Amino acid sequence: MATSQFELALSTDLYELTMASSYDALGRHGRAVFSLYVRKLPEHRHFLVVAGVNELLERLVALRFDDETRAYLRTLPMLRPDFVDSLASFRFHGDVWAVREGTVIFADEPILEVEAPIDQAQLVETLVLNAIHYPTLVATKAARCRLAAPGKTLVDFGLRRTPSLEAGLAAARAAYLAGFAATSNVLAGARYGIPVSGTVAHSFIESFPSELEAFRAFARTYPGDPILLIDTYDTLRGAEHAVIVARELAAEGRRVRAVRLDSGDLAELSRAVRALLDRSGFPDIQIFASGGLDEYELHALEATGAPIDGYGIGSRLGTSTDAPLADMAYKLVEYDGEPVLKLSTGKRTLVGAKQVWRRIGRDGHYSEDLIALRDEPPPGPDWIPLLRPVMRGGEILERPALPELRAHHQSEIDRLPPWLRVLAPTATYPVRLSDRLRARQLQAEETIRRREGL
Amino acid sequence: MATSQFELALSTDLYELTMASSYDALGRHGRAVFSLYVRKLPEHRHFLVVAGVNELLERLVALRFDDETRAYLRTLPMLRPDFVDSLASFRFHGDVWAVREGTVIFADEPILEVEAPIDQAQLVETLVLNAIHYPTLVATKAARCRLAAPGKTLVDFGLRRTPSLEAGLAAARAAYLAGFAATSNVLAGARYGIPVSGTVAHSFIESFPSELEAFRAFARTYPGDPILLIDTYDTLRGAEHAVIVARELAAEGRRVRAVRLDSGDLAELSRAVRALLDRSGFPDIQIFASGGLDEYELHALEATGAPIDGYGIGSRLGTSTDAPLADMAYKLVEYDGEPVLKLSTGKRTLVGAKQVWRRIGRDGHYSEDLIALRDEPPPGPDWIPLLRPVMRGGEILERPALPELRAHHQSEIDRLPPWLRVLAPTATYPVRLSDRLRARQLQAEETIRRREGL
Repeated sequence: MATSQFELALSTDLYELTMASSYDALGRHGRAVFSLYVRKLPEHRHFLVVAGVNELLERLVALRFDDETRAYLRTLPMLRPDFVDSLASFRFHGDVWAVREGTVIFADEPILEVEAPIDQAQLVETLVLNAIHYPTLVATKAARCRLAAPGKTLVDFGLRRTPSLEAGLAAARAAYLAGFAATSNVLAGARYGIPVSGTVAHSFIESFPSELEAFRAFARTYPGDPILLIDTYDTLRGAEHAVIVARELAAEGRRVRAVRLDSGDLAELSRAVRALLDRSGFPDIQIFASGGLDEYELHALEATGAPIDGYGIGSRLGTSTDAPLADMAYKLVEYDGEPVLKLSTGKRTLVGAKQVWRRIGRDGHYSEDLIALRDEPPPGPDWIPLLRPVMRGGEILERPALPELRAHHQSEIDRLPPWLRVLAPTATYPVRLSDRLRARQLQAEETIRRREGL
Repeated sequence: MATSQFELALSTDLYELTMASSYDALGRHGRAVFSLYVRKLPEHRHFLVVAGVNELLERLVALRFDDETRAYLRTLPMLRPDFVDSLASFRFHGDVWAVREGTVIFADEPILEVEAPIDQAQLVETLVLNAIHYPTLVATKAARCRLAAPGKTLVDFGLRRTPSLEAGLAAARAAYLAGFAATSNVLAGARYGIPVSGTVAHSFIESFPSELEAFRAFARTYPGDPILLIDTYDTLRGAEHAVIVARELAAEGRRVRAVRLDSGDLAELSRAVRALLDRSGFPDIQIFASGGLDEYELHALEATGAPIDGYGIGSRLGTSTDAPLADMAYKLVEYDGEPVLKLSTGKRTLVGAKQVWRRIGRDGHYSEDLIALRDEPPPGPDWIPLLRPVMRGGEILERPALPELRAHHQSEIDRLPPWLRVLAPTATYPVRLSDRLRARQLQAEETIRRREGL
């Protein structure tokens, strides 16, 4: 949200500051490259959709340590006072390479790389991870919902159970980026121009002496074509009441835009409601469904051919319930021109500044990825690079508009091999390392083992 | 964070505003009671620890619709212009009853109840759910970590993967409320006075020509007793290097406070490291462990008697990974003095303004709960009421300090029956409904069925 300088600067793990304090005392400012990537895709995920890069860049630009912030930091005995003083002139002046938001990525592939003096590149670790981790999980979940219900209108209803208001705003943006049509989150409408949508809750119906009276009262006072929530007491009876109101509105030249189902067997109820609306002469009233939905429910509903026109997806999107956590890491991969890495089983870090190349097959679909050192030439004419310079010397190089990123994401999905455009693919998308990267990796491991006597 | 009036007012689901717009046009301002509760505990949870009430009350007090906000709302065609104008004078002036933060609650028990004109009580639904849902999940997870490692020092490391910076701050507070000792989140230290903790990352070690040099450089520049991260290359070799540095520091009258393990078989490595430190004459150097930990890992480590003094718990706490979502609802239960509810299978709402009574058994432990109508007398002398008035007419009645709430939580845990103080109890804590509540419930259902002709 409107994060103050104090809040932004202090929203960090303490160790980022203790390290910076030591680097400052040691005069250690060698050029470092850090990579952000996921070591392994979360269970139930076969790709990730990157989001949050824009937000990160804005945070990096805004990062300052003002008087109030330094006054607080001076109270922490583990920080050197002269280091805290030096923060007065802090400006992030690193370079950032990143994939575009909306891009599909796989395990081990850098989402972004930060190149800066090590004290700076390290200091922003918490901000980097925090900015990318959650929006990426939500964009990915949203993309999966779209795959499960192609062509249907999907609306983000997540805000009430997102972890904080700030998360709700990020989730609405991520869902829209990944092709959702609208959000219930009014702030997301104001901030990002995302269409907002919503009608009434059960409480509205319950507060009236009867459902029919509630529908009439809402239709009378809503300045448009209302959506009526019909499952408060009995969904089919609710649909009958909606038909009565639709007839009354028709007399005034208005209409009921849709009915919403929020409980019960949505497949069965939607069919019964559709039949009732059709035979009552209202084939144009749409059916909208909500209530604990996610990509699995959508897939099941669509498989039965349920006549549902749109879905509201809420809590399971906003908490990425089946994959709330990705093994995302921000790791030093090069210091002062030398590759570095941690020798730890199961926690591979790919050394050096890198590029991800993606091959477009003859059928127009992505066919394989190659992770290479950044300075390697393109592997061939049908390969495209994913990482682009987005910040240089602390200056943001481009601020793509959200609709543009949304269109980019759509083209990403269109280019995914069809076998990957399902909820549970039976194969893994091929990602290889270039020979030079592999050689550099082995060499770095050997050097470190020898040096540490291991 | 420093949420602006614009952000706070618009961080809502659109339908809260469309309903308020209709209520305004209808002149409908009857007294409503809404209950916040979980319909069913999440899988893997046998109680919840309430958190977020303070934050909610502050949001309610701060809620305004300033000029900028109303200017945006006037662009939304689904809201009546005169309603938007009327928001200029909006102040929340309802009453709130709530359990204290840190209190243990079970399914169906009201966490809080809001009593206000229906337009107001409804309007704040999104804010209420959003303020309580996530902090409650994190506090619950933190309490479980404490049960799994009694007496051990637990530190929140979650910020880097919490869903937003705001969530990170709320998570640090919730974890501290539930008995964590410290956090890595510097802002949580500044804002709430929570002790902050942290040392270095692997990158720090990797950027030096050798691990030993890195340890020495850090020890030289850290203004206190350092914690050394020893698993970058080889944990036992790292422990040997820590011993060398400890000897060097001893000559200056300083010491190594602890070593940290962040990967590998923590049970086995901690034993080997402990033995090495002890036989090298450093029984006082503590062992601190981190890396993908949660209550299950803690329980397993403690079961082996691993000589670990403290744990850093990060991403799994900050995302409540095994239970990221609770079926928490904010439902109208009374309008204009009459009980109301939704007739929907599996979604029971308990009607009317309520109180939760908790019985303290002869052994000093909680033995059972009774959900009753609020105006019922206490069921007996050994029962205590959980819901207390916390806001009246929009004024906050008490602002308990965090240490006080933390002490309250500790007493809650102490009073839990011992069989419930485990990760997977084999029984369910007994929660009953009072006879009057049950009768009122049945009567309300019958009235509605009759009225709706069902």
